[in-house]
Amino acid sequence: MTEAKRSYLVAYDVIDDRRRNHVSKILMTCGERVQHSVFLLEVRPSKILDVRKRIEGEIDLETDSVLICFLGIKATARRDMTFIGKRSYQDVSIPAII
Amino acid sequence: MTEAKRSYLVAYDVIDDRRRNHVSKILMTCGERVQHSVFLLEVRPSKILDVRKRIEGEIDLETDSVLICFLGIKATARRDMTFIGKRSYQDVSIPAII
Repeated sequence: MTEAKRSYLVAYDVIDDRRRNHVSKILMTCGERVQHSVFLLEVRPSKILDVRKRIEGEIDLETDSVLICFLGIKATARRDMTFIGKRSYQDVSIPAII
Repeated sequence: MTEAKRSYLVAYDVIDDRRRNHVSKILMTCGERVQHSVFLLEVRPSKILDVRKRIEGEIDLETDSVLICFLGIKATARRDMTFIGKRSYQDVSIPAII
């Protein structure tokens, strides 16, 4: 039985431009950019472990910060996320307060 | 019976410096800055409504984006948040992968 996909919010503060680009490229391959340095990933748990390992290999653990926040199943994540203003995450009917 | 506190992650992309400062000041009064534009709030639901209203009054709804992500009770939030690298959120024993 294949693992079910889960939602994760990934936010990062990476000082160096080159490192920051590498992190965003990793996340772009498997997630949706909802803000400049925040991605929403809907992936299997094994995939998030791979993403974590690749990010660990890119950042400076002393100066950079990457936060991975588990949001549960897709429906729960969408219910629990509220955007005010611009919703960069186009294809999802997340309630926005206009 | 008073409302129980809940955890919320608030991340923002605000283009204008003045607006961005106003948003971070609002969040600083009731939350912990875990990254440059990401705060963790542990507040009552009535408080998050107040925060939302104040943020709506500050940002440009066309260009700026504020994401509020409900994380549930404090213990769940801490379990579901993993930091890689720098953990700006000092006083919490969130597992960091060093």
